[in-house]
Amino acid sequence: MLHTEFASDNTSGICPEALNSIIEANSGVMASYGNDDWTRRACDAIRDLFETDADVFFVFNGTAANSLALASLCQSYHSIVCHKLSHVETDECGGPEFFSNGTKLLLADGADGKLDLADVARVVAARTDIHYPKPRAVTITQSTEVGTVYSLAEVQALGAACRDMDLSFHMDGARFANAVAHLQVSPADLTWRAGVDVLSFGGTKMGMPVGEAVVFFNHDLAQDFAYRCKQAGQLASKMRFLAAPWVGMLQNNAWQIRAAHANAMASRLGAALSAMPGVALMFPVQANAVFATLPETTAATLKARGWSFYSFIGAGGARFVCSWATTAEQVDALVADIRQALP
Amino acid sequence: MLHTEFASDNTSGICPEALNSIIEANSGVMASYGNDDWTRRACDAIRDLFETDADVFFVFNGTAANSLALASLCQSYHSIVCHKLSHVETDECGGPEFFSNGTKLLLADGADGKLDLADVARVVAARTDIHYPKPRAVTITQSTEVGTVYSLAEVQALGAACRDMDLSFHMDGARFANAVAHLQVSPADLTWRAGVDVLSFGGTKMGMPVGEAVVFFNHDLAQDFAYRCKQAGQLASKMRFLAAPWVGMLQNNAWQIRAAHANAMASRLGAALSAMPGVALMFPVQANAVFATLPETTAATLKARGWSFYSFIGAGGARFVCSWATTAEQVDALVADIRQALP
Amino acid sequence: MLHTEFASDNTSGICPEALNSIIEANSGVMASYGNDDWTRRACDAIRDLFETDADVFFVFNGTAANSLALASLCQSYHSIVCHKLSHVETDECGGPEFFSNGTKLLLADGADGKLDLADVARVVAARTDIHYPKPRAVTITQSTEVGTVYSLAEVQALGAACRDMDLSFHMDGARFANAVAHLQVSPADLTWRAGVDVLSFGGTKMGMPVGEAVVFFNHDLAQDFAYRCKQAGQLASKMRFLAAPWVGMLQNNAWQIRAAHANAMASRLGAALSAMPGVALMFPVQANAVFATLPETTAATLKARGWSFYSFIGAGGARFVCSWATTAEQVDALVADIRQALP
Amino acid sequence: MLHTEFASDNTSGICPEALNSIIEANSGVMASYGNDDWTRRACDAIRDLFETDADVFFVFNGTAANSLALASLCQSYHSIVCHKLSHVETDECGGPEFFSNGTKLLLADGADGKLDLADVARVVAARTDIHYPKPRAVTITQSTEVGTVYSLAEVQALGAACRDMDLSFHMDGARFANAVAHLQVSPADLTWRAGVDVLSFGGTKMGMPVGEAVVFFNHDLAQDFAYRCKQAGQLASKMRFLAAPWVGMLQNNAWQIRAAHANAMASRLGAALSAMPGVALMFPVQANAVFATLPETTAATLKARGWSFYSFIGAGGARFVCSWATTAEQVDALVADIRQALP
Repeated sequence: MLHTEFASDNTSGICPEALNSIIEANSGVMASYGNDDWTRRACDAIRDLFETDADVFFVFNGTAANSLALASLCQSYHSIVCHKLSHVETDECGGPEFFSNGTKLLLADGADGKLDLADVARVVAARTDIHYPKPRAVTITQSTEVGTVYSLAEVQALGAACRDMDLSFHMDGARFANAVAHLQVSPADLTWRAGVDVLSFGGTKMGMPVGEAVVFFNHDLAQDFAYRCKQAGQLASKMRFLAAPWVGMLQNNAWQIRAAHANAMASRLGAALSAMPGVALMFPVQANAVFATLPETTAATLKARGWSFYSFIGAGGARFVCSWATTAEQVDALVADIRQALP
Repeated sequence: MLHTEFASDNTSGICPEALNSIIEANSGVMASYGNDDWTRRACDAIRDLFETDADVFFVFNGTAANSLALASLCQSYHSIVCHKLSHVETDECGGPEFFSNGTKLLLADGADGKLDLADVARVVAARTDIHYPKPRAVTITQSTEVGTVYSLAEVQALGAACRDMDLSFHMDGARFANAVAHLQVSPADLTWRAGVDVLSFGGTKMGMPVGEAVVFFNHDLAQDFAYRCKQAGQLASKMRFLAAPWVGMLQNNAWQIRAAHANAMASRLGAALSAMPGVALMFPVQANAVFATLPETTAATLKARGWSFYSFIGAGGARFVCSWATTAEQVDALVADIRQALP
Repeated sequence: MLHTEFASDNTSGICPEALNSIIEANSGVMASYGNDDWTRRACDAIRDLFETDADVFFVFNGTAANSLALASLCQSYHSIVCHKLSHVETDECGGPEFFSNGTKLLLADGADGKLDLADVARVVAARTDIHYPKPRAVTITQSTEVGTVYSLAEVQALGAACRDMDLSFHMDGARFANAVAHLQVSPADLTWRAGVDVLSFGGTKMGMPVGEAVVFFNHDLAQDFAYRCKQAGQLASKMRFLAAPWVGMLQNNAWQIRAAHANAMASRLGAALSAMPGVALMFPVQANAVFATLPETTAATLKARGWSFYSFIGAGGARFVCSWATTAEQVDALVADIRQALP
Repeated sequence: MLHTEFASDNTSGICPEALNSIIEANSGVMASYGNDDWTRRACDAIRDLFETDADVFFVFNGTAANSLALASLCQSYHSIVCHKLSHVETDECGGPEFFSNGTKLLLADGADGKLDLADVARVVAARTDIHYPKPRAVTITQSTEVGTVYSLAEVQALGAACRDMDLSFHMDGARFANAVAHLQVSPADLTWRAGVDVLSFGGTKMGMPVGEAVVFFNHDLAQDFAYRCKQAGQLASKMRFLAAPWVGMLQNNAWQIRAAHANAMASRLGAALSAMPGVALMFPVQANAVFATLPETTAATLKARGWSFYSFIGAGGARFVCSWATTAEQVDALVADIRQALP
């Protein structure tokens, strides 16, 4: 038997609030392409959440959300600064380069999967001649690919730096919910008030079947973005089914309750692992993922028992991701098996 | 009150067979990105339907299905022959050109929205110098944008012509179900046995919430297509929810029962309209759409009463589309209102 | 023996003023990529010619000049209105679509190869929904592909219409010299004072070996255009050799003297042809090309005798193009052969 | 006064053999777009040089030669392995990414600017999932960006490795002439017999005003490449002027005599520098460039005296490039100034 519980937060299904909304939205005929009431409600709910009149677009997945958002900030001869471990660099098969027709990603570094301000400045300043793409944007992943979270001050500092360097500022929020749940700050503070121009707001990993929101806080950058989505195969005809889950999950703070649960499960797992001999946490556990080095034989034994998880950064490193659906029992079962598998 | 029943077949919701499968698939954790059992079952069901070992990929919408399929047949300096009324030309905001990085659509003509073989040959032969994009593919819409259906013989003739001219052959089957329901031929006969290399097999208009299948009968053309989908933002992480509706709808011939119903509703509407004075059917009613010229005042009256429909080809032309959800009562109500609105 | 004198104006070589400048520029070492004195002088000469502080870039050929200029006006989901006989549509193998990553050309019509203002307005207004690319620019060819010239008033009217419709205005001036020579108006009046935002200023057909200038009258649109050229393979390292011919040809009005000569040769040919029985001019002879319908047997006889010319718009139509190098003797020899070949 | 003699090999002009051919080719009318005798002769001369029936295309510059060649080996979701110091990565402003519509460059390392075989294998094997672009080609620069030359055995080993890994093999030969002059091997041995599929054969740095050749040894990869060039703005109308210099320089071994001279000048400079206290050569001097670390004050003094050279890899590193036009007197003058400027 294969245990995929911790392989990713996209191995879990649809959470009840999202599913109920979909079922509720499946009633009768309705205008297509977003000219329906559910889409209007979902957009309004997102605007309320961010306390501002943002331009909101729903697209199908994270690669599209990030790639289209970044393409709207750049031309092909520009470049985008990102962390060398960012999703746009490591896991989108060149999506940003494709949608922007060739924009280069410039890799910067920083501890715990977070961009170091000085390294961003170094990368931006490295080349200023026309033989190299001109930096036009910075993108960060919040929470990061290694389960950490930029503090509010860190986001603000990056926002200020972007403004100083005349760069646009994008946030890949595939796990924005987990970041907010960890930081306990307002979504507005963590985004536009800190200088973020556009946010990819993740729905799938929160518990939706499909769909992300692209939220433009900078109206100029959103110009003709609806055309961009349409041409790029990202305009849903039955839009109500992309929009309805947002209505359901933003009601009664469900999105935060679900994300906080996922974070708590990761915390539970992290606490257990950190107490084990021969096991070390690789990064602070701040969102819904745990990265740990395991003895090689332990990892092998776990895989033999059917546990599915990603190996990361060489031998022994393992990634465990929790979701809205992860239970304490599952965490404890994993912990027990790891303990047994220790040498 | 707005009546959107006949505005498009994408104003209706999810049909029960599709929704039930989604709900059934929403149980427990499951491998992501298509490595799950529902995806395997859906691919197998499509292969069974077409009686061949096709390569099957699920993408989010029709623009993506068509654009990615066509991009896999061409380079940027090639061209694709299509009908001047085809969806890829008129309603995808340049999606095919974008995904192929510039491939030109060459417009051919033909009665009833169907490509005329001689006109295809004329367009292909018109230019053979390097100053104009080189024809590499033909695409047809089945059923067409004007509610007609290519006969089996017509598809076979186009397939043979493509083979003779060394062109790939793509079928935009956003309403493939309606075409099969009308023709009562086997899906295999209507596609690969007739020379079709790749089919965009429409799910949304059949009754799914989101999702189309790209079915490659020519394995060479499918090479690395999974990478193409991933890069283009068309790989669903929770793939089971794109796949499950296909399992549900291909069971017990539901897809055909639903499509036949939609066709019957269009037929009922067409029959009523054709009997009215001052009203003329613009095209044979063969699938699920009716195009009719109405007296201008009639059209205005209908719109004033809240009926939503597309105007088409100038003043007075109206498009009414039926779906799996259209009822005889709705048809009859529309008919009654049209009759009342006649001068 | 093959007579290619009239096949095109690019069958002739380098005119003396251009060649002499190249030879003069070939002295000693010089900074590359345009940071040399010849490039500075050429840019200044163009600015002087247009009586304004334009942004000037030198690229290698006309496809690049047009495609890069147009790409700077649009995004991939936009569209560009052009005449159905324009070079960008008929003879650049999809270059504009490629460089813009998919921008669609919308074809408008008009007599004598010139855009009809009303038809431009019709095309622009035809679609205003997101399912079709949004018009963002108009491009005209001056002189046109059929040897005619937009009058100053016609250009001004198009410029005003573009401003009204919020469209950018591009002029493909591959044969701008011939147009100016015909109209005897100032280059400034014919371009930016009439609303032209960017001009592709042709050098090759004037008598240079290679190279065109892209002249931006609208500085905002020129932003980062140097990067665009570099990335697109259009930045010459030994730029002096692209720039020097401009210095030579803009001195002492050489460019106009050469273009006026080419026009005069076409005029001489046109006058002779118009007097022949069975021969008809297809378009007014205003620039350096003559389009005429010949008896079919006449065309065949000419080709058999080695005369090379393009057939155009069906049987019997022939295009003869004159250049700076065309001589009256050549024209008269052609005329004599045509006369002999008449039935 | 600015001394640009050593800033680059593209600060020098046209060498006599190239210029004489251009002047000779400027006689009379001639078919355009490559259908002329000079182009035929140039292609034949290149085929003779490589002792094989290669497909030869002339384009305007090195960015285009490399980018179009690489684009013909890949789709947008593929990747290309190159050295982190390669020109395609560091100096083409994202040209390869643009022309391929997003293909990613994967950076490998190796001493002396040359790809290390083991590091290539590591990069190729690092990712085999669809979330990362699939490696399809390797490109090397011969001679390299740091003035070194791959030995014949090194090229052969890379060629064999590419074959084993099912990758295409491209050589950026902007300074191919210098590499051949250094190695004294046959061009055929150094390219197709060693597994190279396509070569960018540099003309400009050899002494031409403009123009490079793309030489396909693998005919399949050259399919429709003429269309690719045309669409990409790289088809010269007056092709004879791009072709003629090749005829001139490949006659009487002029290309090798010129390149050997440039190499000898670099060697003379390198020998002098290596004997100076406080100066160190950074790489073996094998082609026409010398990289040396100078005392910081020395570099500053040189620049103050008007010497133009690129700084490289941090403070003190300087690049001096020799060309066909560099004289022993110029080298000696530079050497004398450096000696004087030492602390």
